[in-house]
Amino acid sequence: MGGKKVNKVVLAYSGGLDTSVILKWLQDTYDCEVVTFTADLGQGEELEPARKKAEAAGVKEIFIDDVREEFVRDYVFPMFRANALYEGVYLLGTSIARPLIAKKQIEIAIAVGADAVSHGATGKGNDQVRFELGYYGLKPDIKVISPWREWDLTSRSKLISYAEANGIAVPSHKRGEPPFSMDANLLHISYEGNALEDPWVEAREDMFTRSVSPEQAPDQATYLNIEFEQGDPVALDGVSLTGANLLAALNKVAGDNGIGRVDIVESRFVGMKSRGVYETPGGTVLMTARRAMESLTLDRGEMHLKDELSPRYAELVYNGFWFSPERQALQAAVDHTQAFVTGVVRVKLYKGNVIVVGRKSPYSLYDEKIASFEDDGGLYDQKDAAGFIKLQALRLRTLGVNRSSFKINEQRRRDLLTY
Amino acid sequence: MGGKKVNKVVLAYSGGLDTSVILKWLQDTYDCEVVTFTADLGQGEELEPARKKAEAAGVKEIFIDDVREEFVRDYVFPMFRANALYEGVYLLGTSIARPLIAKKQIEIAIAVGADAVSHGATGKGNDQVRFELGYYGLKPDIKVISPWREWDLTSRSKLISYAEANGIAVPSHKRGEPPFSMDANLLHISYEGNALEDPWVEAREDMFTRSVSPEQAPDQATYLNIEFEQGDPVALDGVSLTGANLLAALNKVAGDNGIGRVDIVESRFVGMKSRGVYETPGGTVLMTARRAMESLTLDRGEMHLKDELSPRYAELVYNGFWFSPERQALQAAVDHTQAFVTGVVRVKLYKGNVIVVGRKSPYSLYDEKIASFEDDGGLYDQKDAAGFIKLQALRLRTLGVNRSSFKINEQRRRDLLTY
Amino acid sequence: MGGKKVNKVVLAYSGGLDTSVILKWLQDTYDCEVVTFTADLGQGEELEPARKKAEAAGVKEIFIDDVREEFVRDYVFPMFRANALYEGVYLLGTSIARPLIAKKQIEIAIAVGADAVSHGATGKGNDQVRFELGYYGLKPDIKVISPWREWDLTSRSKLISYAEANGIAVPSHKRGEPPFSMDANLLHISYEGNALEDPWVEAREDMFTRSVSPEQAPDQATYLNIEFEQGDPVALDGVSLTGANLLAALNKVAGDNGIGRVDIVESRFVGMKSRGVYETPGGTVLMTARRAMESLTLDRGEMHLKDELSPRYAELVYNGFWFSPERQALQAAVDHTQAFVTGVVRVKLYKGNVIVVGRKSPYSLYDEKIASFEDDGGLYDQKDAAGFIKLQALRLRTLGVNRSSFKINEQRRRDLLTY
Amino acid sequence: MGGKKVNKVVLAYSGGLDTSVILKWLQDTYDCEVVTFTADLGQGEELEPARKKAEAAGVKEIFIDDVREEFVRDYVFPMFRANALYEGVYLLGTSIARPLIAKKQIEIAIAVGADAVSHGATGKGNDQVRFELGYYGLKPDIKVISPWREWDLTSRSKLISYAEANGIAVPSHKRGEPPFSMDANLLHISYEGNALEDPWVEAREDMFTRSVSPEQAPDQATYLNIEFEQGDPVALDGVSLTGANLLAALNKVAGDNGIGRVDIVESRFVGMKSRGVYETPGGTVLMTARRAMESLTLDRGEMHLKDELSPRYAELVYNGFWFSPERQALQAAVDHTQAFVTGVVRVKLYKGNVIVVGRKSPYSLYDEKIASFEDDGGLYDQKDAAGFIKLQALRLRTLGVNRSSFKINEQRRRDLLTY
Repeated sequence: MGGKKVNKVVLAYSGGLDTSVILKWLQDTYDCEVVTFTADLGQGEELEPARKKAEAAGVKEIFIDDVREEFVRDYVFPMFRANALYEGVYLLGTSIARPLIAKKQIEIAIAVGADAVSHGATGKGNDQVRFELGYYGLKPDIKVISPWREWDLTSRSKLISYAEANGIAVPSHKRGEPPFSMDANLLHISYEGNALEDPWVEAREDMFTRSVSPEQAPDQATYLNIEFEQGDPVALDGVSLTGANLLAALNKVAGDNGIGRVDIVESRFVGMKSRGVYETPGGTVLMTARRAMESLTLDRGEMHLKDELSPRYAELVYNGFWFSPERQALQAAVDHTQAFVTGVVRVKLYKGNVIVVGRKSPYSLYDEKIASFEDDGGLYDQKDAAGFIKLQALRLRTLGVNRSSFKINEQRRRDLLTY
Repeated sequence: MGGKKVNKVVLAYSGGLDTSVILKWLQDTYDCEVVTFTADLGQGEELEPARKKAEAAGVKEIFIDDVREEFVRDYVFPMFRANALYEGVYLLGTSIARPLIAKKQIEIAIAVGADAVSHGATGKGNDQVRFELGYYGLKPDIKVISPWREWDLTSRSKLISYAEANGIAVPSHKRGEPPFSMDANLLHISYEGNALEDPWVEAREDMFTRSVSPEQAPDQATYLNIEFEQGDPVALDGVSLTGANLLAALNKVAGDNGIGRVDIVESRFVGMKSRGVYETPGGTVLMTARRAMESLTLDRGEMHLKDELSPRYAELVYNGFWFSPERQALQAAVDHTQAFVTGVVRVKLYKGNVIVVGRKSPYSLYDEKIASFEDDGGLYDQKDAAGFIKLQALRLRTLGVNRSSFKINEQRRRDLLTY
Repeated sequence: MGGKKVNKVVLAYSGGLDTSVILKWLQDTYDCEVVTFTADLGQGEELEPARKKAEAAGVKEIFIDDVREEFVRDYVFPMFRANALYEGVYLLGTSIARPLIAKKQIEIAIAVGADAVSHGATGKGNDQVRFELGYYGLKPDIKVISPWREWDLTSRSKLISYAEANGIAVPSHKRGEPPFSMDANLLHISYEGNALEDPWVEAREDMFTRSVSPEQAPDQATYLNIEFEQGDPVALDGVSLTGANLLAALNKVAGDNGIGRVDIVESRFVGMKSRGVYETPGGTVLMTARRAMESLTLDRGEMHLKDELSPRYAELVYNGFWFSPERQALQAAVDHTQAFVTGVVRVKLYKGNVIVVGRKSPYSLYDEKIASFEDDGGLYDQKDAAGFIKLQALRLRTLGVNRSSFKINEQRRRDLLTY
Repeated sequence: MGGKKVNKVVLAYSGGLDTSVILKWLQDTYDCEVVTFTADLGQGEELEPARKKAEAAGVKEIFIDDVREEFVRDYVFPMFRANALYEGVYLLGTSIARPLIAKKQIEIAIAVGADAVSHGATGKGNDQVRFELGYYGLKPDIKVISPWREWDLTSRSKLISYAEANGIAVPSHKRGEPPFSMDANLLHISYEGNALEDPWVEAREDMFTRSVSPEQAPDQATYLNIEFEQGDPVALDGVSLTGANLLAALNKVAGDNGIGRVDIVESRFVGMKSRGVYETPGGTVLMTARRAMESLTLDRGEMHLKDELSPRYAELVYNGFWFSPERQALQAAVDHTQAFVTGVVRVKLYKGNVIVVGRKSPYSLYDEKIASFEDDGGLYDQKDAAGFIKLQALRLRTLGVNRSSFKINEQRRRDLLTY
């Protein structure tokens, strides 16, 4: 059971059944003091019950923090500046919350003199990695306790028996096998497991909690102006908002319009594929609107560089390497490009659609006169294009001369596939 | 006017006003024989009128080809296998047609002994580059005539005067300034210019021709099963179709459901930003469904590699480098990954939305038992995760020890922006 | 001790002290039959002693294979086609041999009906990963036994005691702590550990075995013509040679001229830094000459693409992902570029230096007349450069106009460093 | 001749024959005032003769600047921090000087109210692009005059005739065709053209000016300690030096030891291949030593990211995009990694070789105890490697099970090559 003696452990504690069992199990197994940390990440739950439960379990040091603004400002927005999408579709809603929780646990561990931290993530998922890479990176000598990998409560019925044997309340809806597991914060809510395990079967409508279905959304579109400053959204329809409040407002209007659901099969860092269904209403609007803002204000060179770096960045966040020097170096490159990503994007929200209908900026690189096919008064000399093309073509012409077999042969593909 | 004497020129000829003027202008200016090439790329226009007009203009060698299957098989599908999106949003509908037209013109030039080729693309756009890089790469000694960069018909009124003076019919709706220019093929239709030039102004509903608006789409969703073999779609709802027929059928059902419109500002290769509105109904469904097919059948390693290469591939296609060795090398890598991208994806089409609701494959890499949080009978030992994380963390722990200032400092960003 | 019962295990067996101890330990610990596999990879050792030792240890199925040609043709040359250098300096000499050994062991396991494989790599190095990823990828249900991670022979003295207690001959020079560990094959020899552990201390001259020091090399340079076909070397000074013979001959002439030593600190996949000294005489000449061949025959587009992919490819080989779909996809891209990498490179070898002094090819893309600053008879119109530059500059000019603060500020760097 | 009227032009003026002819030609052709700018970039020439010649030509505003420290600090060192090598071999010695000259010309143009700038680069090379992208990016409305692309002095004899007709002194050694053209600054000297045009012919020994041949170098090696701070060299053998002085000192000791010559065929941005021979003595030592410093102090993640970005960075510098936002974004990423690249590297210089023999750092990430194959007191648990490998292998095992044809087939390569 993990080697050296533990004196005090900081547990990421939600107050739910699982982490309540963990709390008790830590006390019993390690004979140590448990400090609880409960964060308001915008998951939409009351936190005071967690305090009461912790007190009831004999916890003396209880930390409950509202970290919503920090979460959005220092984690969500930097990630959005990179246009990060994992495997082309996942907005990384769960991934991005883990580093912040890990950081807070380590700060508390240092403050209270704890020598260990613990979390409730299972041994098959990505979250254990995200938590623990955070812990180790921020405090290399920390002891990490991962109950799901250590204990013998290897099924839900054993967990419930343990709870009952130790006087931990088990809500009736938790008694049976849950239809899916969920994780929520201000950016998204996820559903995984059980009822969703067959990737050929459509998710049930009654599972969703943050958005109506497109069918149930209003028949009238909602128009919205989103203002950006240096890459981050700062106002909706002219009203300035803090990051967390803005994201909350976006969630509301987007969810009401049936926006932000995805149903995907993804590749976990620990090696297997899994199926998840996510709701990210505000984030979905933000991703689309930010791209539109960048389309007007980013130079082609920096934009294309960003596009090439973005999948790598997303992979790092997904895999739990937020506190890594390579993620930070990529962030430096990304942030360098954002100084002029300032302006307004107008979107139309309608039954699941986010439609960009306008964008403007004091730093717009779009020039109607140059782009126009009509006369531009000499700003652009069409004859320059001849030289441009001639020199671009020179190497291809040289190839054409020297490689007699430089042919258009789509057949090679068949060969490639016979391996 | 372009140097050496021209004897015979192969013109990419649509039969419309612009290329009819070019035909006459080439005959007059170069005193040469003009050979016309008119392709059916699925643009949805009758081609026989082009033949009649060419005959009336004295053209002796008239080529009219239905290249729809070749277009889809050898250009559209290879590009989709790469998941190519330019600047995150544009499906490259115009870009991908140009190399095929260029190739056909060169083949004809060789067959009829022509020493020159010509096209009707303007001097400010991307298409001139795409045509001419194709010409030069495939036949390095070809003479290229680009009328829009050479002549003095620098405004629409001059063009119309020239037409009238030369007996070329000018349709009444072409007399005034057109509200926008269009380009169409089986993959998409584009709208650019004039009425669309202010990127803050929403496009007019009556402009669209291939899709109804989401609002006008049916209130009932349409479900569709798309079958893939080795990365390409081969059947819809169990009915096998050729590539062109499949794409046409997808266009119909997707357009009927309000799918496939985008309104973007893009960075042209020739250096300026422009605004375009595109309809790509079938392509939009195909992109989403293909990704879902890949999510089940591609290994993480090859998928993430593809994701990183994809923006580069898209840039090459956009910039006109289809017949370049680097595009071909990327294609070789991409195609290598597609051998097992075989199976079925089920999508729900509803008022602009393409929603993946199911996917299955004989080569599925998803394994419910391993992915499940429940007992998997020893396939995956959760204790392995401890070692996995420990070794992943080792370098971060070393950093934590050696870089006392390895801090979480989101403030650096502000410094970055003050340049 | 690793779970399920083992019946027969295929051991990668060198006949040396360590693998002899492993052989005995496997027999005793698992009470199973051991099959030995000994490969001639060009390490320069007699193999028959290994056979005798295996027989003496009671092994009934003994496999001894000369895999030198396969090693060079299917592993070394494909890797060189990618110009793979790990961390800019390491030619991957050890890394590239492991997948082949793993593949041979699996082939034998299938042939003899073994249910397990074993190797002698330690628990701190990269080789355990390279072996085992090969095993698992090629035969997912194989049982892997890694003695160094399992047994309690955790120091050299314990190992020697075990050997003596079990009648295994211990050569006198192996009794003390060895000054370094070595690994050799036709591509290279490596030295690590003990005497080399302080990275500030220069390696001893008497350690090297494949090259004289530059000081001891001849005072007269040796000139050598290397012929390439489709990216691979095929002849030296006009004499055609098989891959293995060619590499052996290159090793000789390069080693005689003091070429191919590097002394590096590298980042192991398992998370720590290590220091290694390598001799790769022939490989060093080959890398330089191949690049020169490519400089004449590869188009800029494909070459630059390769240059960007090459570090990733090297990382995959180093980390043991030879049999991964992403390495194979990269190989497909790389190999696509090599069809015309054919010709001759002339190098001068002198006291540690490999100096390219000439290169020629039937597919040379270099054209004296175009490259010359003198008149080229119209092949290249210098006036085209004006248009080329103007259009390249257009986006930068637009930036200059729109970003008043687009300044040349090298000071930002200081801000970046204060984290 | 270039359109609008020019009043005053700032010419990059060396005082040599070519730019003296240009000076006169500008005065005559444009009837404008010429301002000369002569920079001391460490090319090793007296600058006062340039002043005298400019005065003699009637120039009223003469700028002569020693920009060596700025050159090294703000151009050379940032580029070296990126480990930039073009096409794997070229240290970019000419490329990196052009942006600085362009910037200085623009600063002078603003200061003296000039409306144009001019340079002496030919119409076939890269330098015209590098100058002009700099000009346009820094002052979008500047008029650029490129005499070599405009005038009719299309051969050397015409140039000399023009010089003689206009009283410009023609040194006797400039009368005939020069054996090659040269460009020099503190980082390197280049030789191109004429005698070097056949890439099969070895360069003549008497051409070189900054290094002795390896054969002529001393028989005794020279050892040197190079100190780095945050990625830049700051001292040699314990003596602190400014950047320019340090690079000059490195040039001396490296050139004396026969170090820094390369003979390459490179791909010019304007589309053709060219052959160049370069001497970069100090830069070659610096590149090798810096890499060694990074090998000890950079984390694997950031180092490998840098390695992948480096070819792109080099391409941008080579192509003239120094003042581009994408180069700056890459610089931000690179510089972020350099905060701890501090320490000492010990190199041995011997007859053309730069051999790293030691490296140490207060921020060393190398830990002898962990790297050692011996007992490390629990810092690294070898059993963790089992879990690490198991999870790394999971996806490969899944592939092995699901892709029955996941075979090791090097034969595909042959198919690839038959296009």
